[in-house]
Amino acid sequence: MPLLANDPNKKTWLPVTQDSDFPIQNIPFGVFLTRDDIITIGTRIGDYAIDLGALHQLGYFKDIPLTDDIFLQDTLNDFISDGRKTWRLVRNRISEIFDEKNSELQNNEPHRKIILFSLDEIEMKLPVQIGDYTDFYSSKEHATNVGSMFRDPENALLPNWLHIPVGYHGRSSTIIPSGTPVRRPYGQTLPKEAKTPVFGPSRLIDFELEMAFITTDSNVLGEPIPVEEAEEYIFGMVLFNDWSARDIQKWEYVPLGPFLAKNFASSISPWIVTLDALEPFRVESPKQDPTPLPYLQQEGKHSFDIHLKVAITPENSNSTIVSKSNFKYMYWTMAQQLAHHTINGCKVNSGDMMASGTISGPTPDSYGSMLELSWQGTKPVKLNDGSERKFIEDYDIVTLSGYCENESLRIGFGEVSTKLLPSYQSKK
Amino acid sequence: MPLLANDPNKKTWLPVTQDSDFPIQNIPFGVFLTRDDIITIGTRIGDYAIDLGALHQLGYFKDIPLTDDIFLQDTLNDFISDGRKTWRLVRNRISEIFDEKNSELQNNEPHRKIILFSLDEIEMKLPVQIGDYTDFYSSKEHATNVGSMFRDPENALLPNWLHIPVGYHGRSSTIIPSGTPVRRPYGQTLPKEAKTPVFGPSRLIDFELEMAFITTDSNVLGEPIPVEEAEEYIFGMVLFNDWSARDIQKWEYVPLGPFLAKNFASSISPWIVTLDALEPFRVESPKQDPTPLPYLQQEGKHSFDIHLKVAITPENSNSTIVSKSNFKYMYWTMAQQLAHHTINGCKVNSGDMMASGTISGPTPDSYGSMLELSWQGTKPVKLNDGSERKFIEDYDIVTLSGYCENESLRIGFGEVSTKLLPSYQSKK
Repeated sequence: MPLLANDPNKKTWLPVTQDSDFPIQNIPFGVFLTRDDIITIGTRIGDYAIDLGALHQLGYFKDIPLTDDIFLQDTLNDFISDGRKTWRLVRNRISEIFDEKNSELQNNEPHRKIILFSLDEIEMKLPVQIGDYTDFYSSKEHATNVGSMFRDPENALLPNWLHIPVGYHGRSSTIIPSGTPVRRPYGQTLPKEAKTPVFGPSRLIDFELEMAFITTDSNVLGEPIPVEEAEEYIFGMVLFNDWSARDIQKWEYVPLGPFLAKNFASSISPWIVTLDALEPFRVESPKQDPTPLPYLQQEGKHSFDIHLKVAITPENSNSTIVSKSNFKYMYWTMAQQLAHHTINGCKVNSGDMMASGTISGPTPDSYGSMLELSWQGTKPVKLNDGSERKFIEDYDIVTLSGYCENESLRIGFGEVSTKLLPSYQSKK
Repeated sequence: MPLLANDPNKKTWLPVTQDSDFPIQNIPFGVFLTRDDIITIGTRIGDYAIDLGALHQLGYFKDIPLTDDIFLQDTLNDFISDGRKTWRLVRNRISEIFDEKNSELQNNEPHRKIILFSLDEIEMKLPVQIGDYTDFYSSKEHATNVGSMFRDPENALLPNWLHIPVGYHGRSSTIIPSGTPVRRPYGQTLPKEAKTPVFGPSRLIDFELEMAFITTDSNVLGEPIPVEEAEEYIFGMVLFNDWSARDIQKWEYVPLGPFLAKNFASSISPWIVTLDALEPFRVESPKQDPTPLPYLQQEGKHSFDIHLKVAITPENSNSTIVSKSNFKYMYWTMAQQLAHHTINGCKVNSGDMMASGTISGPTPDSYGSMLELSWQGTKPVKLNDGSERKFIEDYDIVTLSGYCENESLRIGFGEVSTKLLPSYQSKK
């Protein structure tokens, strides 16, 4: 199944600016509420949201084997379950429909009125019902930074880190789309030199710059996914902000891992960019030394060159880019993560989400969390408006964005933008 | 809404033996496949499964506000979402229908033929679609045993344990009903005194004797559930076997907690016994010292006197009870667990499952895992057939069972029984 939709020379009859994250070569998938309050599955070209449910009802996908209601759903799970061949047929067909050489829809104003929405007419929803969510810890720079701060700079990486794509389970129910605000959580923390904990709002709220991939149904319970097949089970990727309460985390996380410090919220960008659309931006991941165990070994290009940025916007102020990183820094690839996750026979379903862990680069301006950027609060980060941040303050908006670019093409993720609200009881 | 269904003097016209876990006062809920391969929601009295979908279609619930298809579903999630008042109305009505004084269904043979199934005619399925699964670690005896073995007998409990109902997220996709076999998982382990890990089937497979509760929809994202209201959001309980691979766990779990050592499978009993049915068996939980923080404080009886047993049955042999414990030993109550889980605003949904952690009692014969029973393999457990076990062997069947009992009533959970199969690739 050729990736016709990826042709970099193709142009669309829809207006798309040169710096858009969503040229006709992207064709991501999302779920939105239309101006008529109907929920539908859609895609985006330029600044237009496209109702795929309506396109299908009007017969534009008639040559593709799809159930009648496949796009008239409030999640992408069933479409993702249809498998890679179907995703490709649909992306290729959408690419044809909006090709500047194709006048069928272009010249059909009644259809255009039904199918196209401007972005301010719609509300983006969570694109999938997330069955299980796993968070990895796969940036060597991040793990080294955290290990240096909390344990020993000489032995920053734990003994298992170079052998295992370390990960842990998170909470699906609190993954929210861009635009949904997050409340500063309450919790237990242990003050310095105290022996008993105190209770109150977290004082150390942080973002984590991550990306996540979304899977399709794959293995039978008990059967691993081989690393060389793992990418076949990945539908696409989103930006992922793993909100963290550092003071709660420190007190709770030994021995069973982070829990309430993480599960109050994680925010994602609403358009899933398919792995197919990212094909032109494949790069090799960092050399792995020691060589991993055979079930994790792979050759070729299995990472992606995705430029990432984090901006903080204080209330009534302008924004400051506080970090520039890149997905290609990840030590473990998504295929290795998925192969490891299932090596014990763990079952993966359509719509599961697996996040990368904080993506820190090699230089201090590429660190993916305030914990690292401010080095545990010892080096406050200066913002454009003259203020400083050690961690995130109430009413700050944190925005992650990401895109791939080469000489002929830019494919982006848009953004995930989230305001931190004050703690719950303080509003009463 | 009085708990009429709990009347201990009520008798049913269905045959029920005296030692049955399922008298007319139990009325648990489950999902099963009928002899006609139709999936339905049902209950159980004695050794009869009762098709609630058929009962509803025949008009037996006509005075209760229920949607037409509420029982014609493959999960209990929507019914659980209907709320406590509805659960009580339905349990009370079922109790009336099967009351020996009520001849309506008893004398209607055509209806009886449609509604009643013997247990060998049905196949029990997972009763809920589990959105999120959390595993707590709330037995002081278990945490003390583990801390003594792996850390320091003098400081067995970590500093946070007496302040926090410690918990962590697990994997929903691998929770399976009683009867589904489990494969010995592959994974990485670190041999004694080695510096690099090896790969192969786990050699230390263990059960964990736990119970789990199932929640209904509750809080808005960002708003905690107060401890005094928490039980309102608990639908019922099941037996829970948290399968564990101790050698994988040891190598992987620092710093983010157990992952592949746990997520290959957890097995549950298929009938959810409602908290309402357990009312007569309320007991106080162990005194908490130090007094927990105010958001965790509660008075009265918030635990339940549930006798628990674990049996191992080797292939072609008879079974041995290897542990007798009790749910009442749990240090933290379910209400405290749920209040803690949501104190940061974490959202809880209908069908979420929260397990207790291993339920160990004060004496060595009441420990809830082979790790503790064999004290890390140093004290092999003798079985009736003369063999010994340090951990679970291929083709062993592990069976957990549980029941409450007073002078007039026995309410039980049935059992969760699971065979361990050899590792996947060794079958090829």
